Amino acid sequence: MSINNIIPDSIPTNKKPAEENSSNVAPNLRPSVANMDAILGQEIAVHDHGFIRVIDYMGNDDAVVQAARVSYGKGTKKVNEDRALIEYLMRHRHTTPFEMCELKLHIKMPIFVARQWVRHRTASINEYSARYSILDKEFYLPNLEYISAQSSNNKQCRDVNMQLSNDEAEKVLHFLKNDAETCYDHYLNMLNLHGEQSQTPLNPEHQGVARELARINLNLNYYTQIYWKIDLHNLLHFLKLRSDKHAQFEIRAYAEALLKIVSNWVPLTYSAFENYMLNSVNLSSKAIKMLKYILQNNKNEAKLLKAADFNLSQREFNEIMDIFEIDNAQII
Amino acid sequence: MSINNIIPDSIPTNKKPAEENSSNVAPNLRPSVANMDAILGQEIAVHDHGFIRVIDYMGNDDAVVQAARVSYGKGTKKVNEDRALIEYLMRHRHTTPFEMCELKLHIKMPIFVARQWVRHRTASINEYSARYSILDKEFYLPNLEYISAQSSNNKQCRDVNMQLSNDEAEKVLHFLKNDAETCYDHYLNMLNLHGEQSQTPLNPEHQGVARELARINLNLNYYTQIYWKIDLHNLLHFLKLRSDKHAQFEIRAYAEALLKIVSNWVPLTYSAFENYMLNSVNLSSKAIKMLKYILQNNKNEAKLLKAADFNLSQREFNEIMDIFEIDNAQII
Amino acid sequence: MSINNIIPDSIPTNKKPAEENSSNVAPNLRPSVANMDAILGQEIAVHDHGFIRVIDYMGNDDAVVQAARVSYGKGTKKVNEDRALIEYLMRHRHTTPFEMCELKLHIKMPIFVARQWVRHRTASINEYSARYSILDKEFYLPNLEYISAQSSNNKQCRDVNMQLSNDEAEKVLHFLKNDAETCYDHYLNMLNLHGEQSQTPLNPEHQGVARELARINLNLNYYTQIYWKIDLHNLLHFLKLRSDKHAQFEIRAYAEALLKIVSNWVPLTYSAFENYMLNSVNLSSKAIKMLKYILQNNKNEAKLLKAADFNLSQREFNEIMDIFEIDNAQII
Amino acid sequence: MSINNIIPDSIPTNKKPAEENSSNVAPNLRPSVANMDAILGQEIAVHDHGFIRVIDYMGNDDAVVQAARVSYGKGTKKVNEDRALIEYLMRHRHTTPFEMCELKLHIKMPIFVARQWVRHRTASINEYSARYSILDKEFYLPNLEYISAQSSNNKQCRDVNMQLSNDEAEKVLHFLKNDAETCYDHYLNMLNLHGEQSQTPLNPEHQGVARELARINLNLNYYTQIYWKIDLHNLLHFLKLRSDKHAQFEIRAYAEALLKIVSNWVPLTYSAFENYMLNSVNLSSKAIKMLKYILQNNKNEAKLLKAADFNLSQREFNEIMDIFEIDNAQII
Repeated sequence: MSINNIIPDSIPTNKKPAEENSSNVAPNLRPSVANMDAILGQEIAVHDHGFIRVIDYMGNDDAVVQAARVSYGKGTKKVNEDRALIEYLMRHRHTTPFEMCELKLHIKMPIFVARQWVRHRTASINEYSARYSILDKEFYLPNLEYISAQSSNNKQCRDVNMQLSNDEAEKVLHFLKNDAETCYDHYLNMLNLHGEQSQTPLNPEHQGVARELARINLNLNYYTQIYWKIDLHNLLHFLKLRSDKHAQFEIRAYAEALLKIVSNWVPLTYSAFENYMLNSVNLSSKAIKMLKYILQNNKNEAKLLKAADFNLSQREFNEIMDIFEIDNAQII
Repeated sequence: MSINNIIPDSIPTNKKPAEENSSNVAPNLRPSVANMDAILGQEIAVHDHGFIRVIDYMGNDDAVVQAARVSYGKGTKKVNEDRALIEYLMRHRHTTPFEMCELKLHIKMPIFVARQWVRHRTASINEYSARYSILDKEFYLPNLEYISAQSSNNKQCRDVNMQLSNDEAEKVLHFLKNDAETCYDHYLNMLNLHGEQSQTPLNPEHQGVARELARINLNLNYYTQIYWKIDLHNLLHFLKLRSDKHAQFEIRAYAEALLKIVSNWVPLTYSAFENYMLNSVNLSSKAIKMLKYILQNNKNEAKLLKAADFNLSQREFNEIMDIFEIDNAQII
Repeated sequence: MSINNIIPDSIPTNKKPAEENSSNVAPNLRPSVANMDAILGQEIAVHDHGFIRVIDYMGNDDAVVQAARVSYGKGTKKVNEDRALIEYLMRHRHTTPFEMCELKLHIKMPIFVARQWVRHRTASINEYSARYSILDKEFYLPNLEYISAQSSNNKQCRDVNMQLSNDEAEKVLHFLKNDAETCYDHYLNMLNLHGEQSQTPLNPEHQGVARELARINLNLNYYTQIYWKIDLHNLLHFLKLRSDKHAQFEIRAYAEALLKIVSNWVPLTYSAFENYMLNSVNLSSKAIKMLKYILQNNKNEAKLLKAADFNLSQREFNEIMDIFEIDNAQII
Repeated sequence: MSINNIIPDSIPTNKKPAEENSSNVAPNLRPSVANMDAILGQEIAVHDHGFIRVIDYMGNDDAVVQAARVSYGKGTKKVNEDRALIEYLMRHRHTTPFEMCELKLHIKMPIFVARQWVRHRTASINEYSARYSILDKEFYLPNLEYISAQSSNNKQCRDVNMQLSNDEAEKVLHFLKNDAETCYDHYLNMLNLHGEQSQTPLNPEHQGVARELARINLNLNYYTQIYWKIDLHNLLHFLKLRSDKHAQFEIRAYAEALLKIVSNWVPLTYSAFENYMLNSVNLSSKAIKMLKYILQNNKNEAKLLKAADFNLSQREFNEIMDIFEIDNAQII
């Protein structure tokens, strides 16, 4: 079903849609989602010290539909038509109606994760400032099972199947823990403070160095906190990239938690997102040619397919064979 | 009172602030504003056919304070301290906490106004599409009192004190009205439609031209509609520019209506905005030098001030004299 | 070939790459493209009165590669490796290196095209202001062959195969031309001007109405002009959307001209763009399942495929059959 | 002189301005700036290991003028009129013409500086990735003279006049240096590498941990590198904020270097920026009232001014007295 079947060629009017008129009567008028209200303010744990908390949200699946119907005209309002409209929007990348929903989160994450996070520019951020306040003694340590070697076929990732030996993993943990603790002790010392929870000066005859300077001694695995506000379109883009298998494991853990939040918030949008973005595949024009070739010729072909036949890189060729579970030998 | 008096040097904790814990209990958790809930969905009339309707909002003055305290640390929460913190943020252009509030509006405005509106890029828009739907026969006609001559000292504006003669103004209205009606009749005719409210073809033996083509015959004073979502910081920037006396009268009318909405929504922020942005003045370093000169020398000066004395343009010089109501003769 | 083959695990140094050192010597240091220098400032005609002129550009294919190598480390610099790297970036939507090139254009287009154009927010615009200056008497009239009926299966487009009869098309042209001329005459009359090229008042005893008001009488097919600056990544996104068959014909004509400019400017990037974006297809997870089914079962299947078998909409099902030229009967 | 004196009411034409026609003839057509060409690719040192290198630029003062004249119409082209137009644009915050120039830099800076830098979202960034490559052993250590105590009247800054004692400053340096070196040693050890410049494994029987994990042990004062592209308007906004006395010293050092680059690149724009932004003051409406009061009443007033008289905070009151060098006692 396409948008053309959903939306009749009605002459638009300036009258407010019926369901909006009602909003002038009832006391609670803003669109709300019970599943979101139920988790408002609660910490959803991520890693050893991190969390995500939903602070506020604006809009829901209806708000997406409502905005789309401003652009495309009005139609009937049955749920299955809302679903079809949202799928249409997602499939054709009509992204502006998804910008009409907004999510505000409080997130605690290691600094090295925050450094990846802020690269998503179409969002609003307030970060805890270590120029104003003293950071907690909280740093990220990976679980033993996530301490892996460099991937041999991807230059940016660890290979999750190549866990280090226990000895080596323990050594890594030892370094990370010890160095973080030493650096923190010196951080406090430079601030001339006795301890984290105390304002007592270490040495009453001296003054400490400024906070903005002392903090530069801390490691990248120390936790920071942000308030983060983003619209649904840009959030889905973030999730597509950051839940990808090539994203660093530590930020993916946050993306996984966020995917669950989004599925609670806007279930129709989330379902369309899963089908048309998260688990979709972009086929290049060369890949399309190869698939057409296989679909049309496979019965009487007697030779093995090669990447070069289609001017594909070996890597792209392999990925297509994997995605469609094509057995090269079988095709003959 | 500055931020340094408001915010004690407390060691931060990971505990949720008390007022946020409560949100896990009560059913209506999201920050809300009674004055906004009261006008949700209602059309606030602007011009002859336009309106602004508040569809949804996120956050309030508290949300600004809450986001700022993530960055700057925590303090006590008395209202007068919230006010001082918001004034501090506004005065020093710490703009990110104001991005944490969001407003969604449904607006009906003439196309020539929409053309100015969309230049504000940090916002989300869904506009009524005349490729999908047929536009109503509604166009803007100015009131007689707003039909003025070109300003003689500003190249972009009309001069509101230079109203045309009644005859001339009537001629303008006559042209605007007649041409809009003629163009609309031909719009329907090209679409092969009998009338605005009817789908009956004008000529059953012919087909009409596509909507996307027919609409290009309409005039710039025809009304369009948008859903518009923007954060509070960018909204205030919009309002500063579009409520200015150099903005075109027709968009200023919308800005005026929006100023009232914002003062209802976030009264502390609005008050700080009025003082530190809307009615503030930016003094150039040369203008500062001139003012310092007057303040320090005016008692025993015996000559009239001239723009050239301070390397100022005559226009900037005049504006300073106006703003501070300086009487050149008086200074001597 | 993937990025992992291109980029050796070299230890990075702070030395400037050799080819950059040379830039301290020669007088013309900035990356340039002869094909672009050759067309700088020239009007490339679009439609009856429109044009595109390249005013300036920054960067080229090398600049993309150079920026990518900052992120990913350094490698050798042969052309075929640059090509492979650019393809890798495009395929995996590593978009930031493409932001490192910039294009500045002078474009003349009808107002209804400009209204679509400005929806692309990540760009810089200066538009000719009819508050300051008087618009030329230039309006867009479509060629007879592009005057078509509304598409029957797409609510937003004309159907290019459904040209109107000559009589009807002439009627459309007549309306568009006459109304534009009448509105312009009245525009000048309201401004109290004798003619377009003259500043002589029509009636010396009267004053005209302000320009900002007179202009609202003009039609949406009047031409306007903009300076437009955009980075390569956002330009490619613009071109993907605006050269699409669902984009309005009038803006597609500009997109087509721009595609040629881009292919001259950054040929490697353009080639990757064509393969991985412009002519690529995004397959939903349901569509992937259907293709896998066909690829694995087609030899011994005895039934016709149906959209419902794969939970696909009829429209998406049809499109897949079209793209891969699958003959349902043939599959059996 | 204002824009209204600069720009005659000429009827615009579609002819290309004369100075642009010439661009079709000469081989070097793009606007260029000799002072910028002279420093292209050269490292301008900042701090102990950092630098700024100009990679490319687009546009100059003329490009700002050219874009403004698209909007406002055409005028004569004398240099003093260009200057007046640029001052007009800057003074009235007509910011879009300044977006028409673009600067691309290669910058090496400590990570804690990069964390502040990336908060400026309207820019393009490619950062050196420690997931792909191994970071150099280079970390920031402040000069002794910049090791200061926390400011007592500003919660975010050090107080440059409160240098620590030599003993204490040495202790700070000792901690920063030792911890950075230890953490780096362990970084290499975790990577199973012998040394920075060597790929030899430390222990051939073991494998190292993935780079993306090892790097989280490094301190915030380690250097990173970015390619950064930004338009002139957003660059000036960055410089206004980051050259401010409340900005952290370490990022201000980069801002100072950039101010010099900009003054070389666009001298007219830079001069207007200095006068109307960098050294300007924003006076609140309450502050304006106070100044008016002083200007009009000071001769016969017999009492000292107090902040409360004008509903000003003590801090704002003091700042006004400072800026205009008002001697409260003198006023009586």
